[in-house]
Amino acid sequence: MERTCLAIILAAGESTRMKSSVSKVLHPVAGRPMIAHVVDALASASISDVALVVGRDAEAVSAAAHTAGVTVTSFLQKERLGTGHAVLAAREAIARGYDDILVVFGDTPLITPEPLKAAREGLAEGNDVVVIGFEAADPTGYGRLIVEDGVLVAIREHKDASEAERRITYCNGGLMAINGRKALDLLGRIGNMNVKGEYYLTDLVEIVRAVGGKAVAVEAPEEELTGCNTRAELAYIERLWQQRRRQELMLSGVSMIAPETVFLSWDTELAQDVLVEPNVVFGPGVTVESGAIIHAFSHIEGAVVRADATVGPFARLRPGADLGPKSKVGNFCEVKKAEIGAGAKVNHLTYIGDAFVGAGSNIGAGTITCNYDGVNKHVTRIGENAFVGSNSSLVAPVSIGDGALVASGSVITDDVPADAVAFGRARQEIKPGRAPILRERYETEKAARKKPKAAE
Amino acid sequence: MERTCLAIILAAGESTRMKSSVSKVLHPVAGRPMIAHVVDALASASISDVALVVGRDAEAVSAAAHTAGVTVTSFLQKERLGTGHAVLAAREAIARGYDDILVVFGDTPLITPEPLKAAREGLAEGNDVVVIGFEAADPTGYGRLIVEDGVLVAIREHKDASEAERRITYCNGGLMAINGRKALDLLGRIGNMNVKGEYYLTDLVEIVRAVGGKAVAVEAPEEELTGCNTRAELAYIERLWQQRRRQELMLSGVSMIAPETVFLSWDTELAQDVLVEPNVVFGPGVTVESGAIIHAFSHIEGAVVRADATVGPFARLRPGADLGPKSKVGNFCEVKKAEIGAGAKVNHLTYIGDAFVGAGSNIGAGTITCNYDGVNKHVTRIGENAFVGSNSSLVAPVSIGDGALVASGSVITDDVPADAVAFGRARQEIKPGRAPILRERYETEKAARKKPKAAE
Amino acid sequence: MERTCLAIILAAGESTRMKSSVSKVLHPVAGRPMIAHVVDALASASISDVALVVGRDAEAVSAAAHTAGVTVTSFLQKERLGTGHAVLAAREAIARGYDDILVVFGDTPLITPEPLKAAREGLAEGNDVVVIGFEAADPTGYGRLIVEDGVLVAIREHKDASEAERRITYCNGGLMAINGRKALDLLGRIGNMNVKGEYYLTDLVEIVRAVGGKAVAVEAPEEELTGCNTRAELAYIERLWQQRRRQELMLSGVSMIAPETVFLSWDTELAQDVLVEPNVVFGPGVTVESGAIIHAFSHIEGAVVRADATVGPFARLRPGADLGPKSKVGNFCEVKKAEIGAGAKVNHLTYIGDAFVGAGSNIGAGTITCNYDGVNKHVTRIGENAFVGSNSSLVAPVSIGDGALVASGSVITDDVPADAVAFGRARQEIKPGRAPILRERYETEKAARKKPKAAE
Repeated sequence: MERTCLAIILAAGESTRMKSSVSKVLHPVAGRPMIAHVVDALASASISDVALVVGRDAEAVSAAAHTAGVTVTSFLQKERLGTGHAVLAAREAIARGYDDILVVFGDTPLITPEPLKAAREGLAEGNDVVVIGFEAADPTGYGRLIVEDGVLVAIREHKDASEAERRITYCNGGLMAINGRKALDLLGRIGNMNVKGEYYLTDLVEIVRAVGGKAVAVEAPEEELTGCNTRAELAYIERLWQQRRRQELMLSGVSMIAPETVFLSWDTELAQDVLVEPNVVFGPGVTVESGAIIHAFSHIEGAVVRADATVGPFARLRPGADLGPKSKVGNFCEVKKAEIGAGAKVNHLTYIGDAFVGAGSNIGAGTITCNYDGVNKHVTRIGENAFVGSNSSLVAPVSIGDGALVASGSVITDDVPADAVAFGRARQEIKPGRAPILRERYETEKAARKKPKAAE
Repeated sequence: MERTCLAIILAAGESTRMKSSVSKVLHPVAGRPMIAHVVDALASASISDVALVVGRDAEAVSAAAHTAGVTVTSFLQKERLGTGHAVLAAREAIARGYDDILVVFGDTPLITPEPLKAAREGLAEGNDVVVIGFEAADPTGYGRLIVEDGVLVAIREHKDASEAERRITYCNGGLMAINGRKALDLLGRIGNMNVKGEYYLTDLVEIVRAVGGKAVAVEAPEEELTGCNTRAELAYIERLWQQRRRQELMLSGVSMIAPETVFLSWDTELAQDVLVEPNVVFGPGVTVESGAIIHAFSHIEGAVVRADATVGPFARLRPGADLGPKSKVGNFCEVKKAEIGAGAKVNHLTYIGDAFVGAGSNIGAGTITCNYDGVNKHVTRIGENAFVGSNSSLVAPVSIGDGALVASGSVITDDVPADAVAFGRARQEIKPGRAPILRERYETEKAARKKPKAAE
Repeated sequence: MERTCLAIILAAGESTRMKSSVSKVLHPVAGRPMIAHVVDALASASISDVALVVGRDAEAVSAAAHTAGVTVTSFLQKERLGTGHAVLAAREAIARGYDDILVVFGDTPLITPEPLKAAREGLAEGNDVVVIGFEAADPTGYGRLIVEDGVLVAIREHKDASEAERRITYCNGGLMAINGRKALDLLGRIGNMNVKGEYYLTDLVEIVRAVGGKAVAVEAPEEELTGCNTRAELAYIERLWQQRRRQELMLSGVSMIAPETVFLSWDTELAQDVLVEPNVVFGPGVTVESGAIIHAFSHIEGAVVRADATVGPFARLRPGADLGPKSKVGNFCEVKKAEIGAGAKVNHLTYIGDAFVGAGSNIGAGTITCNYDGVNKHVTRIGENAFVGSNSSLVAPVSIGDGALVASGSVITDDVPADAVAFGRARQEIKPGRAPILRERYETEKAARKKPKAAE
């Protein structure tokens, strides 16, 4: 029979050093609140019961933590009296009775399921407390894990450590698994007889030993335990997340010329043989199919780029953009809520919004779908193999039939039937020899404007 | 009584290795000449008398060094005979009589006031020479500071150092404070009996000892003493500067998703809770207020972005752009010398120059303010809550009244009164079935063009 | 008399870990197939006879390797039985008789001529085998070079190495020079009595010793020997290449504010006193002359930027763009197959394709050359000192004479003579007080649309 587990996420911090108008766990990493990354790691470790200990911005934090397949119950920590106190805010949930209690933090979004599973395995092997530790590149300031014969005998705070202990690089990561059947008893024994008068979860290590139980440590990569207290640390976490995901994508067959300049969202999907040039930003909700090329300086969110399509340079795809196979969206083009048919081309200085562009159509440079009248958005429908001349304005709602041709510089307000040619532009007039006269007039105006200044 | 101080900036170098048409101290760091950063550090250390020793590009260097609150006098070093000789180019200034003489370099723009103050404190404590040193990550090539019982007894050049001395990592940073009352005497004792026949300022350490005075060293971070001899070093200095300023801003509450891709100018001001996405370049003169979002690929200079406004992606704000609270300037939009009112939207492919856009107005995609007639610039005034349809041309000088509506694709040459609707576009004509005929004609032309080639 | 040399490039790998639809040696570094970089290094080392051992994508790999001045003969390796076997695929070429045989890899594109020359010098000094080695930052996994009294006595694979040998950091880079007169004999002695049953080229070291010859090692920088097995390694190689080239350019007098954000192609030429701002991508075929400024967010390929011209920010220059001295191409502008005359300005939101713009002309914001009719491309010719008003459409083929003036918002279909003024826009009409009525109608439509939803 499988062991039951309750995860407790501590997310009640004040976030003072973030200097932010919202709780730090709401700040996004890869376009998604930090707290959601933590819940996601729990879900991936097959943990579906979560107690969320909240303080500041309780409602928003609870909302951000909600995830399919996971039941999250929020508990308010009214006073902030240390991690031991915070965990007990979820006393009611613990009291339901679980085999395992897993305590994690809302501000360590890089945690993966592996150490969480390892910690629970430690409980399954009969230990009462399992601390997740890490080998610190620089242990200064961290609590050292004092391990003797495989047993974790103490967590020694840096300031209390002897010189020999300070040479230990195996440090406390803060996350902890606790025997769920004994948890309330053990937690109840934590005292606050210390300088700050707080209840420290780490005291459990010595408590469990005192009552004849056993504590052990399991190791996680240091990176996964990186916590976030300042915006500089938030940027560092984002960087580690990005590096991890870029690496995964490259190893799966995605080419990135300069991976360090490609910014992914938590849900970005890039298929094998996709090429991503330098300086590309992916917002949430993007799927790119095989053989597509994303040129430099592209910004893509909420969009599908189908096989062998080409995007950019300098393209912006907004939510609802769906680029058909072998289609092209080029420089200084914006596509929003629009389907671009197979092989269609939207190459220069164009805005396509609320539109359908049929397969094989060509949209000339500077074309604008005028989709908004100030109140409503209207749809533009362009058929297959149509040709829209440069600098045209398509005033929606309007449709251009298959094979139709719109003359350059036209304003199109009425539907254009298939195979028709549409014009909507004024006839040209020429005033011979007039340019020098105009220029002279302008120069006179210029001189006139400057006079008052001279008179000052 | 406060001690008086003269700072001498050595800026007479030939800059040969820069391979540049101008002196290296004129090259910008964070958008500002290197020399100005040095003067600024002096001003921040409350030093207001500066002697600037110039050689190449003397006039331009002097001009670049001028700073409010600091009196800069330039002295030409005609021959280049070493640092000791260079300092004596300012003999006349030294002779005015100061308590402290502080010698700094024009090409170390990362220096901060702290080590400058520490060096002067060293003089105040009775030392005659105070050298600013640093702990070198790799000391190879640097002069080593030989310190015995707190006294700096010598600066040993790398090539002259014993094996034991080479293990010393405390190195000479070049900057030096000298007892102002003895400075001319001490400097006069520097000889040139060396391989190059030059006068070295570092000789002062042994000279001061010989005459019964005392030299000491104070430490500065290595970074602050980074000098610039090549464009690669210039890029390195720029990088350190950027890192320092980004860190400051993040710790003050600015979010940067990828700080290494955000480029700031020396005077960029970003308020708490500003979000800066990846790939943003700030030129000089930018202020961004709280809650504003600067999306990726934005380029901003000489602009004010007010609270909760949104910029980009792909926006360019040029000098004189003033974006009101909650306004939006979006992709492929350029704003120059223009006020965008509160909540107004300029979202796509638009040029707004020499203009006023009233609060709540919406400027459609592809709108151009035609502000230039080839000679003069003219102003466009758009009232509040107006709607300018897509792809319109507003030929300045022109005004659009409050609540007015301009039809898409219009060329507007005359003022539009409040609440009026303005059209300026041709009526559409349709030629049914004409497209296939035209295409055939084009294909024939294509074939005709190719013939001569085939005949070659 | 000069020694003759045959270089054998091993390029028959399956590239499995690249997860790619093409052989890894076809993947580009700096815009050019990896294999071409290797051939180029051989050519620079004055080696003109190359045997290319191919497997997967044989034809494409052979095509990519062709280089002026080098004779490349391809040999198919049908089975993959190790490096010793691969070299013998070129048996026929070796049999032609050369003084030196140089074995290199198709997937180490960072190799420079220096170690290749050094290896050949080793042969000239009478050695029979010369291995190119490197000092490994982390030698784990590499074969160690066991050197005794200057003689390379063995290459010890990591797994076979003693603890003492594992401390050796001098490692096998794989590249090797072999006495050409003895090569077939030596190669024939390589056996396959090992776990994998493969023929290893490295066995030559012990073989040559057994037959009374001598092997030595020459050192190359580790970087030059970096091989490519995954797309992550490809990105790493690209990064090293870019760093190398940026450094060269900076030391030659090019300023880069943030060199790590500037991406160069293998043939990018930037003159002294060119300034490149952050975030610039150079595709192949670009030359930039002295004094030119390339602003941030520019994308340039196949273009010439002449002295003191200004590009960007947000400019795209495509093949055939030729920007005259002191000309300007600004934000959201694309130039393709077009000459921009001296001092001409194309500053905002403009597309110039298949065109000539005369010296001193000014092209207004939003101008589009309508160069494509759906079948053919046509040319636009603009004379000198002409002024094209904003948002104009120039329908090619068309010409605008010297000094002519095109009114803003015009569609120009007929030639404009010199000094003429051309208009091609509709007259403006105003409907006073109509805006509130229209808005009310739109609001009614909006309400009507929403009803069905409410009824659901």
